[in-house]
Amino acid sequence: MGFQGRDVISILDFTRNDLEELFEVADYYLRNRRAYTLLQDYVVALAFFEPSTRTRLSFETAAKLLGAKVIGFTSEEGTSIAKGESLADTIRMLDAYADIIVIRHRYEGTALFAAEIAEDPVINAGDGKQHHPTQAMLDLYTVRRLFGTIDGLTYAVVGDLRYGRAASSFIYGLTLFKPRKIYLVSPPLLRARPEVLETLRERGVKFEEASRVDDVIEDVDVLYVTRIQKERFPDPIEYERVKGSYRITLKLLEKGKRELKVLHPLPKVDEIEPAVDSSRYAAYFTQASFGVPVRMALLSLIAGVRP
Amino acid sequence: MGFQGRDVISILDFTRNDLEELFEVADYYLRNRRAYTLLQDYVVALAFFEPSTRTRLSFETAAKLLGAKVIGFTSEEGTSIAKGESLADTIRMLDAYADIIVIRHRYEGTALFAAEIAEDPVINAGDGKQHHPTQAMLDLYTVRRLFGTIDGLTYAVVGDLRYGRAASSFIYGLTLFKPRKIYLVSPPLLRARPEVLETLRERGVKFEEASRVDDVIEDVDVLYVTRIQKERFPDPIEYERVKGSYRITLKLLEKGKRELKVLHPLPKVDEIEPAVDSSRYAAYFTQASFGVPVRMALLSLIAGVRP
Amino acid sequence: MGFQGRDVISILDFTRNDLEELFEVADYYLRNRRAYTLLQDYVVALAFFEPSTRTRLSFETAAKLLGAKVIGFTSEEGTSIAKGESLADTIRMLDAYADIIVIRHRYEGTALFAAEIAEDPVINAGDGKQHHPTQAMLDLYTVRRLFGTIDGLTYAVVGDLRYGRAASSFIYGLTLFKPRKIYLVSPPLLRARPEVLETLRERGVKFEEASRVDDVIEDVDVLYVTRIQKERFPDPIEYERVKGSYRITLKLLEKGKRELKVLHPLPKVDEIEPAVDSSRYAAYFTQASFGVPVRMALLSLIAGVRP
Repeated sequence: MGFQGRDVISILDFTRNDLEELFEVADYYLRNRRAYTLLQDYVVALAFFEPSTRTRLSFETAAKLLGAKVIGFTSEEGTSIAKGESLADTIRMLDAYADIIVIRHRYEGTALFAAEIAEDPVINAGDGKQHHPTQAMLDLYTVRRLFGTIDGLTYAVVGDLRYGRAASSFIYGLTLFKPRKIYLVSPPLLRARPEVLETLRERGVKFEEASRVDDVIEDVDVLYVTRIQKERFPDPIEYERVKGSYRITLKLLEKGKRELKVLHPLPKVDEIEPAVDSSRYAAYFTQASFGVPVRMALLSLIAGVRP
Repeated sequence: MGFQGRDVISILDFTRNDLEELFEVADYYLRNRRAYTLLQDYVVALAFFEPSTRTRLSFETAAKLLGAKVIGFTSEEGTSIAKGESLADTIRMLDAYADIIVIRHRYEGTALFAAEIAEDPVINAGDGKQHHPTQAMLDLYTVRRLFGTIDGLTYAVVGDLRYGRAASSFIYGLTLFKPRKIYLVSPPLLRARPEVLETLRERGVKFEEASRVDDVIEDVDVLYVTRIQKERFPDPIEYERVKGSYRITLKLLEKGKRELKVLHPLPKVDEIEPAVDSSRYAAYFTQASFGVPVRMALLSLIAGVRP
Repeated sequence: MGFQGRDVISILDFTRNDLEELFEVADYYLRNRRAYTLLQDYVVALAFFEPSTRTRLSFETAAKLLGAKVIGFTSEEGTSIAKGESLADTIRMLDAYADIIVIRHRYEGTALFAAEIAEDPVINAGDGKQHHPTQAMLDLYTVRRLFGTIDGLTYAVVGDLRYGRAASSFIYGLTLFKPRKIYLVSPPLLRARPEVLETLRERGVKFEEASRVDDVIEDVDVLYVTRIQKERFPDPIEYERVKGSYRITLKLLEKGKRELKVLHPLPKVDEIEPAVDSSRYAAYFTQASFGVPVRMALLSLIAGVRP
């Protein structure tokens, strides 16, 4: 169906063909980093009800490099929600001022709700615990840049698979391609959500749940690591007990394939040993940098223009 | 006297002719929504000492669509006032960096004070309890767009007429035209300020104070609704007692004229029944959207340029 | 070595020739204040981990007038540092999105640390208690504009010479020129740091420490005043006892030379009597306004372009 005028709520709304089109345009922007005037008549609203640095700054960079005017806020305190205004009215206001609305919110379904109210295209920049489609786009794009393909590779998605929206979205995104296998590696309390497993089954993607990275590392091409937050554990002792199993060390990685790459949506805290940062395994800084060309590609396709 | 280089402190500083000129330029921007370079050499400072979403974002959108560079802050914490700097010194700084200063402050008279210090034109984006001239401009523009005229209509201004600057400014703005009659509808504690009534008398505008919307609804063309804040009432029981009389329901509106339109400066909380939003009466979302073309018109006339 | 691609960590990294080149370009921007497209392909990140108004807004104005795209944050709360991300990772992110990084931080050495991590040029917009090189640049530029030269003049730097980075940076900056003499005027507790005195001695600059402005005022061409913060004094009585000696009054200034000029990095609180503001001595508002052309000059030289 193409991108023009479209809402971006979940990575599952897209097809493999959509993403391949997106990646080609992203390739162009990656090779030709400069200012454009393609979106000069566009106002892009960045409606960040929840704090974010990377997603917000890369969207802002992308929009501005395309020539768009950017308005918005970076926390709920910056809005009239604090005065008791409904979210619907806030969205209507943004719809009146802007041409594309990028929204981030802690509650699941906010982006869809906004898309139903707004005439403008709405882009979900992360809502609730499952959906962060533009993160999945840049994650998949990173794999494609690193390996030349997304198909046929073995993935391990590690960390908080229950509450981490980047992890769920990445897994959803993989179901649009043909991964050889996906390992879902998490503490028992933070297992992937039933709807994620259901999607994997429906789409015939081979997967396996595991509890320790060490058990799967030898088989893996892409290790997608996410943060495990202490607060998720009712018992801090339980957290202390398991956290070591999810810490990625250079020693651990050296048991794996030579071409193994570590991705991470960032920010990371201490789940990756600092020595990994400068190793050949670390792909997460490159991955973060792809946020700009991928989001440029997305914004321009939604606006119906190409570089 | 025209707009070029002029301060915008109160709607009462303007004439009917000034506003008609403004509205014509706003019409142009409304019809031709796109990016301009008219103000490309201008720096516009948005000095919001008090939070605001709608006014701030629509000024920002307007300035950016005109090609201006926008700088500023969104709360007093973002300034050196917190370090003990005087407001005068803060204004002098903005005057040095910017070419037009848009200011919002909780205290009456701040915009005028700023205008006396700054060489740049200063635009009052709301200060204290009476003046919010650009809100009045877009409110009057909305009436003109909806009815083709501002003259000869019957208005009811409803809600907190004592502390609500949008309401006072709208009433002041109406005195520049020839309304048939204005009903001032509020709880006794929140009656219009003596200086507002004085202005109505001086300018020979027919008005009547009332306590219930129900009593005047049949006679009204434009119902201008504003929020009543619970905190204004010394006794919460008193608030609970009166608030029902100021809630605008579809049932209430159906007693009125077929062409009746409801305006509201927004944000609204629960003073308008949600069912009204999608009725033919609701004009407040359209009204909010006019914030952009009206503020574009104002900024460009102050800069002495026309589209 | 020129400016192109260079980090700006301390004013001591520059030569007199560097600064003269900078000042010539600043002269051009001062005379020709308008929008440029010289930096249109540049993204400038303003990474303000510590609040600032003047430095931040003048950098933002400068970058935008040059056509650059500006992204960033205005406090640490706006970053992932709050989620536990390392400063290094935050810098890597900015390095990925932006082309020039302007950084402000409360800790000494942060700018240097950032410069070591980032491939982009890093500009120190104030870190810790000694270095604020772009403030020194605009301060020296102000002297040059006022007196036609920086050499041969007598300076008094007054206030908190121990913790005030603007004061230390200005003194460091003077060592690149040939001042006749520098008086360092401060309460005993807030004497200039040993490394500052050492630099003065090494570079053969004549200086003298003093405790009262009154003792030196007759000999001075440029009085550089900074704030003394009460919190620096372990004993509030001690603060009350000394503060009068550092308050600049019109009466005090009238004991000095006719051409005496008062500079101040601003914001000021009560260290300068308000009557001075409108006197012929006050140069601090002019000085603040030079923040824009000097920072435009710096950004464009770092980008390797000239107007």
